[in-house]
Amino acid sequence: MRRFKIPEVTVGRLSLYLRCLNELEEEGIEVVSSLDLGRRCGVNPAQIRKDLAYFGEFGTRGVGYYVKELKEDIKRVMGLNKIWEVALVGVGNLGTALLRYRGFQQHGFKLSVAFDIQTEGKEIPEGCQLYHASEMERVIKERGIKLAIISVHYSQAQEVAERLARAGVKGILNFAPVRIRLPRGVVVRNVDMGTELEILTFYLTMKGTR
Amino acid sequence: MRRFKIPEVTVGRLSLYLRCLNELEEEGIEVVSSLDLGRRCGVNPAQIRKDLAYFGEFGTRGVGYYVKELKEDIKRVMGLNKIWEVALVGVGNLGTALLRYRGFQQHGFKLSVAFDIQTEGKEIPEGCQLYHASEMERVIKERGIKLAIISVHYSQAQEVAERLARAGVKGILNFAPVRIRLPRGVVVRNVDMGTELEILTFYLTMKGTR
Repeated sequence: MRRFKIPEVTVGRLSLYLRCLNELEEEGIEVVSSLDLGRRCGVNPAQIRKDLAYFGEFGTRGVGYYVKELKEDIKRVMGLNKIWEVALVGVGNLGTALLRYRGFQQHGFKLSVAFDIQTEGKEIPEGCQLYHASEMERVIKERGIKLAIISVHYSQAQEVAERLARAGVKGILNFAPVRIRLPRGVVVRNVDMGTELEILTFYLTMKGTR
Repeated sequence: MRRFKIPEVTVGRLSLYLRCLNELEEEGIEVVSSLDLGRRCGVNPAQIRKDLAYFGEFGTRGVGYYVKELKEDIKRVMGLNKIWEVALVGVGNLGTALLRYRGFQQHGFKLSVAFDIQTEGKEIPEGCQLYHASEMERVIKERGIKLAIISVHYSQAQEVAERLARAGVKGILNFAPVRIRLPRGVVVRNVDMGTELEILTFYLTMKGTR
C-alpha cells in the first residue's frame, strides 16, 4: 500500500462509495458493476477503478464488485472496522447540534465525551458525558481518545487544539472559523462553512445567476 | 473562460487563496510570489499557477502577484464582489448555530431570512428575520434570494429543497445527513460531517494510529 500519497479527494470518494455500498446492501444487491456503482455515486467508473487501485485489487473482470466484500475492504482501508470514540470541545449552539447530529453515528463514531468551560444547564444526549474544560487532558488520556471536534469560539480554537494534541489526540475536526496549525503528527481538518457557500456562488456565477 | 469544466477542488482552493490574500493585505504586503503564496496556503506554487490559469493571466513574471489585484480578480471570478442574501431553513440547534456563525459574514454572506415550522421562542440574531415555513416561497420570491441553507431534520430535507428550487433558489447548502437530488439548474452541496471524520480516520489509520 502506498502510504501518505493518496489525494484527499480520493479519500472523500471512498467515503461516498461506502455510502452507496451501504444502500446497495440494504436493497439486497450482492454484486454491482463499476458502471452501476458509478451511476449511483455520480462518479466516472474509470475514476472508481483508479481510486480503488491505490489499495489493491478489487472486483472481478466481467462480474463487478461483491457489495459486502468491497464495503468491508473500504471500511478496513479507512479504519472504520471499529467504533471511534470522539471528544467534542465547546458545547454552545454548534456543539450541541453536533452532539445530536445523526450523521456521526451513521458513520460509526461515538461522541462519548464533551467539554465546556460552562457545564451548567447543557442538554447532553444520552451516552455522552459532559466535563469541565479543565478536565480535558485527564479524561482524554485516560480514555485513550484519538479524535476530537472543536466547536469553541474562534479565539480559543488554536489553544484548545494544542491542548488536545498534548493529551494524545491525533485527528481534529475544527469548526471554528479560523485555521488551526499543529505540528506534524496531528491531522487537522478545518471545516469552513463559508468556503462551502463560496463554492456555490462560484458555480452560480459561472452559470450567470446573479 | 472555460465554463463548467473547473474542478471543485480548484474552486475550493480559490477560496483558500482568497483567505490568504486577505491576510497578506491586512499585513500590508502588496506583492507576493507564487512561492510565498504557496507556503502560506500550503499549496504547491505550480498548482496555484495552474488553478489561476483557468481564469486568465495573473501575476507578472519575476515580480509575482499584486495582492489587492489578485484578491479582487478572484472575488470577481467567484461572484463575491457583491453581498449574497441567504435563506436558512430549519432553526433548531444547528440552524441557530449557523445563524450565528461568524464565518459566513466574513465571506460576504448575509443570512437575512430564516424559516421554521415553529417560530415561538427562537433566538434570532439582529439583521435576520424569522418567518413561518409556510411563507417560504413567498418571501424568497419577493426578495429574489438565490442561496439557501437547509438544516432541517433529514426526513424533511428533500421536500424543503424542492420547495426552495421552485421558489427560485439556485444554490443549496445541505446540512441534513441525507443526499438531496435536484434537477439540473440548482447546485446542491451536501455537507456531510461524518465524511469529514472518516477522512481523518483514514489518515490516522494510514499512520498506524488505532
